[in-house]
Amino acid sequence: QERHAGHYLSKPYAVYRINATGGRMPYKQILTRRELLRDTDLSPRDLRRIDPTLGQTNNTPAVIVREDSVLVNLGVRIIICADHALILEPDTMASVNFLESWTQRVQAASMPGSNADGMEVLPFELVMVEAALQETCGQLENRLEHCTRRYRSLERKLQTGLERTTFEEMRFMKQAIVQLESHASAVRDELLETLDDEDDVERMTLSSKATGEAKEVEVEEVENLLEYYVQQTEAVHGATEALLENTRDLDESISVTLSARRLEVSKIELMLSIASFAAAIAAVVTGVFGMNLTSTFEASVVAFYLTTSLLVTGCVGISAWLYRLCRRRNIL
Amino acid sequence: QERHAGHYLSKPYAVYRINATGGRMPYKQILTRRELLRDTDLSPRDLRRIDPTLGQTNNTPAVIVREDSVLVNLGVRIIICADHALILEPDTMASVNFLESWTQRVQAASMPGSNADGMEVLPFELVMVEAALQETCGQLENRLEHCTRRYRSLERKLQTGLERTTFEEMRFMKQAIVQLESHASAVRDELLETLDDEDDVERMTLSSKATGEAKEVEVEEVENLLEYYVQQTEAVHGATEALLENTRDLDESISVTLSARRLEVSKIELMLSIASFAAAIAAVVTGVFGMNLTSTFEASVVAFYLTTSLLVTGCVGISAWLYRLCRRRNIL
Amino acid sequence: QERHAGHYLSKPYAVYRINATGGRMPYKQILTRRELLRDTDLSPRDLRRIDPTLGQTNNTPAVIVREDSVLVNLGVRIIICADHALILEPDTMASVNFLESWTQRVQAASMPGSNADGMEVLPFELVMVEAALQETCGQLENRLEHCTRRYRSLERKLQTGLERTTFEEMRFMKQAIVQLESHASAVRDELLETLDDEDDVERMTLSSKATGEAKEVEVEEVENLLEYYVQQTEAVHGATEALLENTRDLDESISVTLSARRLEVSKIELMLSIASFAAAIAAVVTGVFGMNLTSTFEASVVAFYLTTSLLVTGCVGISAWLYRLCRRRNIL
Amino acid sequence: QERHAGHYLSKPYAVYRINATGGRMPYKQILTRRELLRDTDLSPRDLRRIDPTLGQTNNTPAVIVREDSVLVNLGVRIIICADHALILEPDTMASVNFLESWTQRVQAASMPGSNADGMEVLPFELVMVEAALQETCGQLENRLEHCTRRYRSLERKLQTGLERTTFEEMRFMKQAIVQLESHASAVRDELLETLDDEDDVERMTLSSKATGEAKEVEVEEVENLLEYYVQQTEAVHGATEALLENTRDLDESISVTLSARRLEVSKIELMLSIASFAAAIAAVVTGVFGMNLTSTFEASVVAFYLTTSLLVTGCVGISAWLYRLCRRRNIL
Amino acid sequence: QERHAGHYLSKPYAVYRINATGGRMPYKQILTRRELLRDTDLSPRDLRRIDPTLGQTNNTPAVIVREDSVLVNLGVRIIICADHALILEPDTMASVNFLESWTQRVQAASMPGSNADGMEVLPFELVMVEAALQETCGQLENRLEHCTRRYRSLERKLQTGLERTTFEEMRFMKQAIVQLESHASAVRDELLETLDDEDDVERMTLSSKATGEAKEVEVEEVENLLEYYVQQTEAVHGATEALLENTRDLDESISVTLSARRLEVSKIELMLSIASFAAAIAAVVTGVFGMNLTSTFEASVVAFYLTTSLLVTGCVGISAWLYRLCRRRNIL
Repeated sequence: QERHAGHYLSKPYAVYRINATGGRMPYKQILTRRELLRDTDLSPRDLRRIDPTLGQTNNTPAVIVREDSVLVNLGVRIIICADHALILEPDTMASVNFLESWTQRVQAASMPGSNADGMEVLPFELVMVEAALQETCGQLENRLEHCTRRYRSLERKLQTGLERTTFEEMRFMKQAIVQLESHASAVRDELLETLDDEDDVERMTLSSKATGEAKEVEVEEVENLLEYYVQQTEAVHGATEALLENTRDLDESISVTLSARRLEVSKIELMLSIASFAAAIAAVVTGVFGMNLTSTFEASVVAFYLTTSLLVTGCVGISAWLYRLCRRRNIL
Repeated sequence: QERHAGHYLSKPYAVYRINATGGRMPYKQILTRRELLRDTDLSPRDLRRIDPTLGQTNNTPAVIVREDSVLVNLGVRIIICADHALILEPDTMASVNFLESWTQRVQAASMPGSNADGMEVLPFELVMVEAALQETCGQLENRLEHCTRRYRSLERKLQTGLERTTFEEMRFMKQAIVQLESHASAVRDELLETLDDEDDVERMTLSSKATGEAKEVEVEEVENLLEYYVQQTEAVHGATEALLENTRDLDESISVTLSARRLEVSKIELMLSIASFAAAIAAVVTGVFGMNLTSTFEASVVAFYLTTSLLVTGCVGISAWLYRLCRRRNIL
Repeated sequence: QERHAGHYLSKPYAVYRINATGGRMPYKQILTRRELLRDTDLSPRDLRRIDPTLGQTNNTPAVIVREDSVLVNLGVRIIICADHALILEPDTMASVNFLESWTQRVQAASMPGSNADGMEVLPFELVMVEAALQETCGQLENRLEHCTRRYRSLERKLQTGLERTTFEEMRFMKQAIVQLESHASAVRDELLETLDDEDDVERMTLSSKATGEAKEVEVEEVENLLEYYVQQTEAVHGATEALLENTRDLDESISVTLSARRLEVSKIELMLSIASFAAAIAAVVTGVFGMNLTSTFEASVVAFYLTTSLLVTGCVGISAWLYRLCRRRNIL
Repeated sequence: QERHAGHYLSKPYAVYRINATGGRMPYKQILTRRELLRDTDLSPRDLRRIDPTLGQTNNTPAVIVREDSVLVNLGVRIIICADHALILEPDTMASVNFLESWTQRVQAASMPGSNADGMEVLPFELVMVEAALQETCGQLENRLEHCTRRYRSLERKLQTGLERTTFEEMRFMKQAIVQLESHASAVRDELLETLDDEDDVERMTLSSKATGEAKEVEVEEVENLLEYYVQQTEAVHGATEALLENTRDLDESISVTLSARRLEVSKIELMLSIASFAAAIAAVVTGVFGMNLTSTFEASVVAFYLTTSLLVTGCVGISAWLYRLCRRRNIL
Repeated sequence: QERHAGHYLSKPYAVYRINATGGRMPYKQILTRRELLRDTDLSPRDLRRIDPTLGQTNNTPAVIVREDSVLVNLGVRIIICADHALILEPDTMASVNFLESWTQRVQAASMPGSNADGMEVLPFELVMVEAALQETCGQLENRLEHCTRRYRSLERKLQTGLERTTFEEMRFMKQAIVQLESHASAVRDELLETLDDEDDVERMTLSSKATGEAKEVEVEEVENLLEYYVQQTEAVHGATEALLENTRDLDESISVTLSARRLEVSKIELMLSIASFAAAIAAVVTGVFGMNLTSTFEASVVAFYLTTSLLVTGCVGISAWLYRLCRRRNIL
C-alpha cells in the first residue's frame, strides 16, 4: 500500500533480444531501466516514447529514427540497433506472433537456395523494420477480414427480421470498424511522414557507411520499402472505409424500415378505429330495436330483414366512405 | 501470400506517352519506377504526389509546377514535360476520354485552315494543361447534368406521392451533389492557388526562354488560360450550390408534408373517438330499455319513438358539443 | 461547345466611365481586359479581386486601396482613380441605382447655392467612395425594412392560427434575416479594417499632394467619413440582430404552442377513454338484464328504476373516480 | 434623408468632466470630436476603442493603458488622465450611478477624520479606476442577486405544477444567467490580462515620477488593487456558474418529470384498453343470451345467476390475466 | 458594504510551515502577502498562479519549477523551498490529509531501522514533491473506487427494473466519472510536460550543487520519480476511461430496453384493438337477433346454437386473420 518511487529506480524490463549475427535464436532477457538505456544508447526521453509501462500516453503508431537506433511502435514495440534488436512486452500476442514469424523466416533464410526473393541483401535493421511492418499489415488485414465476416453475417440476419440483439451487434461492429479505420490511417500517416522526412529516410540504414551514388541507391531502397507498406495499409484503409460506408447504409436502411413499419401500424390502427366506429353505430341501431318498447313493427318479418340488410349496408358504407376520405387526404 | 517489399523495387508503371513533335499518335509504354523518374527528371517525392498506386492519399486535385515539368492530377494524372507527356493509369475512363479528345484535336489541328482559333500558337506543355482542364470541366459538367436530371425526376415523383424508395434516392442524390460541389470547389481553389503563385505562373511555360516584355506577354497568356477555367469550374460550382439548396428545400418540404399528415391522422382519430364515445352512451341507453325488467312503458309506441329520436339527437349533440369544444381550444 | 481559353484573351468588359472633370455625364464603354488594366494601372491580381466574371470567389465586401486607385466591391463594383472611375457590371440593379443617384447629385451640385452642406470640398475619389457607401447603406436599410415588414405580417398571421404555409414563410424570412445580418457585419468589418490600416487611410486621398499638418487634416477627414458609415452599417446590423432575436423567440413560442396542443389532445383522449370504459361496463350490466334467462325480477318496476339509476350513478362514479385518480397523479 | 458624412466632422460628444483638484463637482461638457482628442491627447484609433457611437463593435470590457491616459470600458466608459477624467455617455444608468457614488465619496473624503481607511493616499487616476471597478462589481452583484431571486421563485413555482409560462420564464432566466456568467468572466479576464502585462501595471500610475524602490511599492499597490477586483469578479463568476449548474439540473429534472408523466399516461391507457376489451367480450356473451332465439334455458333462474357470475368472473379474470402478463413483460 | 482595495494591502495568508531540519512538527503561521513573497522569494506573478484566493482561475493541476522554489498545485497547494515548505489553504480536506500522512512519515523515518526503503536519501524538496504526488494519486484512486462502487450498485439496481431515480443517479455518476477522467488526464499531462522540459527537471533539485556525472544521476532520480507517478495517474486514468466506456454501454442498453418496451406496448395495444374489433362485430350480430322484430327463427333451438357457434368461430377467425396479416407484414 505504501506507495513511493523508491523502488522504481531498479524497475526491470523483460525483453526478447535478437542478435543480427551468430545465428542464435531470440532469447529472453531481464534488464533494468539503466541497463536498457546503456544497451540501446537511447536517452530516457526517447525510451519514454515506446515504454509500455507508461500506458496509453504512447499508444499511437510510431516509427522514430534516432542516431543509432530505430524505435518502432506498431503493435509490437521494438528497439532496433545496427547489430541487435530488443522486443519490449515479450508476452503480448503481437510479440509472440512476431517472434514466431521471425523464427520461420530465419530458418527459411538459412536453408540453401532461399535467396530467390532477393531479401537477404537487406541489412539487419531494415529486415527488422520490414518484419514489424509485415506483422502490422497482417494484423490489420486480419481485423478487416473479421469485420467483413461480421458485417456479412449481420446483413444475412437482418434479412430475416429485426431483433433486439441485432442492434447491439450492429453497434459493436460499427465501433470495431471505426477503430480499425482510424488505426489503419494512423499507421499509414506515420509511414508517409517518415517517408517525407529526408533525414529519417537517410538515417534509417543504421549500419550503412555508404556515400554518394551508393547512398542514393540505399535511400531509394528504404523509400521503396516504406512506400510498399504505405500501399498495403492504404489498401486496408480503403476497404475499411468502404465497409464503414456500407454499415452506415445498412443502419440508415434499418431505421427507414422501422419507421415504415410504424407508419403501417398506425394505418392499421386507423382502419380498425373506422371499422369499430361503424360497428358501434350498428350496435346502437340494433339496441334501439331491442328496447322493450313498442315500435309497432314487432311482428314484421320484412322489417327484420330490411333492418338487418340496411345495418350491414350502412356499416360497410360508413367504413368505406371514411376509408376513401382518408385515402383522398393521402393519410391511408 | 508471403508479403514483402522485395519485388517492389522493379514495380512497372503503364503509361501513355505523347510526344510534342513528330506527329506520332500516343502509344503505351511500360516503365519501371526508376525509368519513370529518369525520364521525367522528377524526385521520388514529387512522383509520390500523383502516383496512383498510393491510393487515396493523393486524390485531391493538384496542379504542381516543377523546374522541368508540370504535374497535373485532375481526374487524369499527367506528367507534362517540355517535349513529351506521360499519362498515368492509362486504362481509367478519364484517361481514355482524354486520349480520345486529344487525338481528335491533333487531327483537327493537322488539317489545313484550322488556325482560325489561334490555339496553335500555344507551346506543347500549355496545350496539354489546357486539354486536361477541358477534360476536367467536361466531367464536372456531365456530373452536374446527371445530378440535375435526377433532381428533376425526383421532384416529379414526389408530386404523385411519398414512397419508401424515394427517401433512399433522395439520400443518394444529396450525397452525389455534395461530392460534386466539394470537388468543383477543390478544382477551382487549386487553380486559384496556382494563379496566385507568381513563380508557378512564370515557370509553367516550361519551354520558354523569353525574358522582359516577351516574358510578360507569356505570363499573361498563362494567367488568362487559368482564369478561363476558374470561371468554368466556378460556373459549375455555383450551379451545384443552387441545386444543393433546392434539394435541401425539397427535403424540408417533404418533412413538413409528413408532419402535416401525422397531424391529420391524429385529428381523424380524435373525431372517431368522440363519435364512438357518443355511440357507447347511446348503446347504454338502448341497453337500459332492453333489460327484461318492467319499465311500465313496455306498450308505449310514443315512448319508443321519443326515446329513439332523443337517442339520435343526444348522440349527435354530444359529438357536436365535444367537436366544438376541441375547435375552440384550437386542437381540431 | 468546343471550349478553350483562346477567345479569352480579348474578353470585353462593359463599364460605365465617370470622369472627374469636364461635367460630362457617365457613359458606357467596352474595354478589353488589357485596355482595362492599362486604363486603371492595376495588376491582373488586383483586378481579379473585383472581377465580376470570376463569380462567387470574390463576392465578399471589399475596399482595397492601391497606389493609384481604390477598388470598391460593395454591391456595386467600382475602380476609382484620381481623375475617373469605372463601374463594372453596368447593368445590375445596384449599378443602375448608383448611377441614378450619382446623376442627381451631380446636377444638384452644379446648381448655384448648393455649397451649403460642405460636400463640394471633397476630392473626386472620396466623393465616389462616399457615393458607393451611401448606396450600400441604402440597400442594407431597404432590406432591413423589407424583413421587418415580413416579420410584422407573420406575427399577425400567427395570432389567428397556425397554417402549413406559415412555417415555410417563417423559414424563408429567417434565412433572409440571417443573410442580411452577416452581410451588414461583413461590410462593417471591412470598413473597420480599412480604418485600422493607417496606410490605407493615408493613401485613400489619391489626388492629394499634401504633407505635414495638411496631410493630417486630410487623414482625419477620411477617418471621419469611414467612421460615419461604420456607424450607419452598425445601426442596421444592430437592428437586424434584434429582429433575428425576435424571430427566434417567435419560433420558440410556436413550438411551445404546438407541444401544448399535443398535450391537450392527449388529455382529451384519455378522458374519452375513461368515459367510454365506464359506458362499456354499463353496457355489460344492461346486457345481463337483457338476457333471455329468468332473473325472477322480470315483473319488478322497482328493479328497473333501481338498476337504471344505479347504472347511471355507477357510470358517472367510475368516470369521476378515474378522473380524480389521474388528477392526483398529475397527468390530467 | 440625404445621408452623408459631411456633418460628421463636427459631431458633438457630451461628457462629464471630473477634475482631480479644485474640489469642483463633476460638470457636463459638450466637446467636438477634435476637442475631445486634444483634451485627452488620444489618437483617433484609441478613442475608437471606447467610442460609444460605434455601437456594439466595442462593447467588450476593456482596460487600456496609454502613455498619458487610462481608457476604461466597464459599463461606464471613462477616459482617465492624470488631472481629470471624462465620462462618455453621461446619461446611461451606469454613468448616473457612477457619478452619484463618486459624489458621495468625495463628500465623505472632504469631511475631517475620514482618513481612517487609508484611501486618500491613492493618486487621482487610481481612485477613478477603482471607482469604475467598484461600480462594475456592484452591477455584477446586483445582476447575480436578481438572477438568484428569479431562480428561487421559479423553483417554488415548479413544485406546485408545470405551466406553459414557466417554460418561457425558465428560458429567459437561463439566458440572463449565461449572459451574466460570460460578462463576469470577460471582466475578470480583462483584469487578469492587465495584471499580467508588466508595462500596463507600471504605467497605470500616470502621475507618478517615482523610480527604483518607490516605483516598486507603487507597482505593488496597483497589483493589489487589480487583484482585489479580480477576486470580487471571480466570486460573482463562481456563484453564477453554480447557479447555472443548478438551472441545468432543474431543466433536466423537469424533462424527466414530463417523460415520467407520459409513461404514466400510456400505462393508464393500456389498463383501460384491457378492461374495455374484457367488457366487450362480456357484452358479446350477454348479447348471445339476449338473442330472440331459443336457447332452451329461457326459464332457468339458475342459468341466469350462473351466467352472470361466470361473466363477472370471466371479465375480471381476463383483465387480471392480461394485467399480469404485461407486468411480467415489464411493460406495466 | 463599502468595498475597496484599501484593506487588501495587508491581506493575511494562513499557511502551514514545514521546516526541512530541526525536527519540529509542522506549525500554523499567519503571513501577510508581502511577508509571504519575501519568505519564498517569489514574484507576485508566480504567487498568483497558486494563490487560492483568486478562485477558479488557477484550479488546474500545476507543477511549476522556479529558480529557488517549486510550486505545486495538485489538490494541495504547496510552495516548496530548499529548506522549508508552506502549505496554503491549511484547512481544506486535502491539506489536512497531506499533513497527517506527512507526520506519520516523519515519525516513521525518525525511528531507527527505517532506512530500508532508501527514501531518506532524497533531499527535502523532492520528499515534499513526492508527498504531494502521493496525496494526489491517493485522492484519484479513492474517487475511482467510489465511482466504481456506484457503478456496480447501479448495475445491480438496473437488473431489477427501471425507476425514475435511477436516471438521476446515472446522470450524476456519469458526471463524476467524466470529471475524474479529465482531472486524472490533466495531472498526468502536467507531469509529462514537466518531465519533457529538461530545465525543469534539472532545477527541481533546488538544494543540489552537483555537476557533471553527479548531476546526471540526480536528474535521472527526478525523472524516475516523476515517471513513477505518471504511471500511477495513467493507471487511474485508464481505469476511469474503461469505467466511462462501461457507463456509456449501460446507458445505451437502457435506452434500447426502453424502446423495446415501447414496441411491446404498441404490439399489445394493436392486438387488443384487433380483438375488440372482432367483439364489436359479434356484438352487432347478437344485437341483430336481439331486435324485437320477427326473424321467424324465434323458436329454433338449432338457430341459437348455430348462431352462437358461428359467432365464436367468426370472432376468433377475424382476430386470427388480422393477426396473421400483421405478422406477415412484419408488424407484430
